[in-house]
Amino acid sequence: MNLKEYISRISPVSAGMEKEVQRRLDNLTKPRGSLGRLEEVAKKYCLIKNTAEPVLEKKVIFTLAADHGVAEEGVSVFPQEVTGEMVHNFINGGAGINVLAAHAGARVVVADMGVKADLNIDSACFRDRKIARGTRNIARGPAMTAAEAEKAVLSGIELVEDELPGGIDIMGTGDMGIANTTSSSAITAAVISLDAEAVCGRGTGIDDKSLARKVDIVRKAVSVNRPDASDGVDVLAKLGGYEIGGLAGVMLAGAANSIPVVIDGFISGAAALVACRIEPKVADYLIAGHCSVETGHRKILDFLGLRPLLDLDLRLGEGTGAALGIMIVEAGVRIMRKMATFEDAGVSGEND
Amino acid sequence: MNLKEYISRISPVSAGMEKEVQRRLDNLTKPRGSLGRLEEVAKKYCLIKNTAEPVLEKKVIFTLAADHGVAEEGVSVFPQEVTGEMVHNFINGGAGINVLAAHAGARVVVADMGVKADLNIDSACFRDRKIARGTRNIARGPAMTAAEAEKAVLSGIELVEDELPGGIDIMGTGDMGIANTTSSSAITAAVISLDAEAVCGRGTGIDDKSLARKVDIVRKAVSVNRPDASDGVDVLAKLGGYEIGGLAGVMLAGAANSIPVVIDGFISGAAALVACRIEPKVADYLIAGHCSVETGHRKILDFLGLRPLLDLDLRLGEGTGAALGIMIVEAGVRIMRKMATFEDAGVSGEND
Repeated sequence: MNLKEYISRISPVSAGMEKEVQRRLDNLTKPRGSLGRLEEVAKKYCLIKNTAEPVLEKKVIFTLAADHGVAEEGVSVFPQEVTGEMVHNFINGGAGINVLAAHAGARVVVADMGVKADLNIDSACFRDRKIARGTRNIARGPAMTAAEAEKAVLSGIELVEDELPGGIDIMGTGDMGIANTTSSSAITAAVISLDAEAVCGRGTGIDDKSLARKVDIVRKAVSVNRPDASDGVDVLAKLGGYEIGGLAGVMLAGAANSIPVVIDGFISGAAALVACRIEPKVADYLIAGHCSVETGHRKILDFLGLRPLLDLDLRLGEGTGAALGIMIVEAGVRIMRKMATFEDAGVSGEND
Repeated sequence: MNLKEYISRISPVSAGMEKEVQRRLDNLTKPRGSLGRLEEVAKKYCLIKNTAEPVLEKKVIFTLAADHGVAEEGVSVFPQEVTGEMVHNFINGGAGINVLAAHAGARVVVADMGVKADLNIDSACFRDRKIARGTRNIARGPAMTAAEAEKAVLSGIELVEDELPGGIDIMGTGDMGIANTTSSSAITAAVISLDAEAVCGRGTGIDDKSLARKVDIVRKAVSVNRPDASDGVDVLAKLGGYEIGGLAGVMLAGAANSIPVVIDGFISGAAALVACRIEPKVADYLIAGHCSVETGHRKILDFLGLRPLLDLDLRLGEGTGAALGIMIVEAGVRIMRKMATFEDAGVSGEND
């Protein structure tokens, strides 16, 4: 598959159904607009799917894992082995994303995009897309080659395309990768032109001293690599992670197939920056599930013009905030589909 | 039943299980605290129930309806008939609360606390607790007698007590009553000592001119009636609504039975003020489902020390925000119950 060719399939979201959708929302037995953001997100969902009778049944969360060479700089409180160990936990159903995806009625597709360990997993929900055994240390040079970056994005696209025959009404994104907030901070600093200090947070829970080191590392990564901020694949190659590239691909595939993509936290946000640099129209297909505690996430959402549905002080990743966001989107869609109109219910409308 | 006797059953929430609950949360395969408010609300749920192995299966939303004499002042965009018409809509399953309660896996108990119309409803989910055919106009005098106010609270308590044999793990509150934001604004102004302007919002969608009139009416209601702000029953009698009294009773019954109560928007907030004036310990049992668009709601939540789980620009009432809030509480409880620990999953812990 050729990336340029693929993204040429992405159309802008049409506002053609807007009046019909708004009319339906306004005829439901409630004061106009009184369900606030549920109505707003239901409308967005309908416009993406170009229908006033939306279906939301099949929900898939793509949780992509990879390791990061920059972990050797001591930017996380967890050892690098945890990336692979957590993939096993995902497969065994014991992680946060398993619990919250089940709560949302979503299934989880887990992919190894570049975990350092050999995983040897045989499971219906696992995809082996390993590009390499972790990226190189971005503090010293590029994370990966341009070819690997493009392969990561294409692999993410293929993950989605492979699931299409089973049906996907909505999808969520999620990540696992020790040190990937460092990589995401560097991507955010580069794309939005912000200083490292403005985009670095505590990740899994580092102390002040480690945070100062992380800021230094991010600053160094941007200055050593000098990515072209207008070129998503270049930013990814210089500063990225394989899971971040894969998630950008998942988002592009959502847009190409008119499937709303609920993005998770900071790492998914960095992937959204990459995806939007590859094809800006993808932003119309994204729904921000929540706003993470990570400092840089709010800045990404503002940059992309996305208002998060939830603000629950989450900072776990894995797709947990996307799963919760999907529940809210579904609430809006159910309102559209299942509420009675004033006429149906014999309820009086507003006074003249 | 005697109200004083009943509320003497309410104990403070014990922090006895706190360490055990925190230990369990910290052993789960995630960075400590990384599920933010899900962990916080799971902990609150556990402390209320005094267990580290919480169950959350049976969910009931109490949606109480009544009419308000103050509607004759033209403070709503909807005619008063809508209160009764919407009760029929609740029973037929076509309202917002029906859709969102179903999404949350909750059943809805609908009660007529004082609707002006004769409803003649025969349904397993309907309770006839009509105290009178609407309150009197609070702009001219008290809404109801002290005896009626106490009866409203006791009826709310009985609604909950009647459901206990079937089991309630968590409950939500909801309301229906044309003009009840006016009544709730007056209660809020009186209890928190705020000017009418600070607590009046647009309700179902009034314009600037009607909003100015509403502010006048609320100011007049407080000055004409001079409620004793320290006496919940007096505030209710002077400014209240039958559904507001009933909801205060629902909250007191939650507290008396160690059942967490997820409160909805502004009207439930006003009921919480009444409940907390009757018995301050009830606040420990309340979880704020969301923050409403109604100006006064944020002020109530701040006053009660409650931080809302959601902020989705809702202003419908009925219990819709409580239903969504219950989904978030359940997410937290599922995390507690279903995630693997580091030991179970063979995942490495934090670096030393």
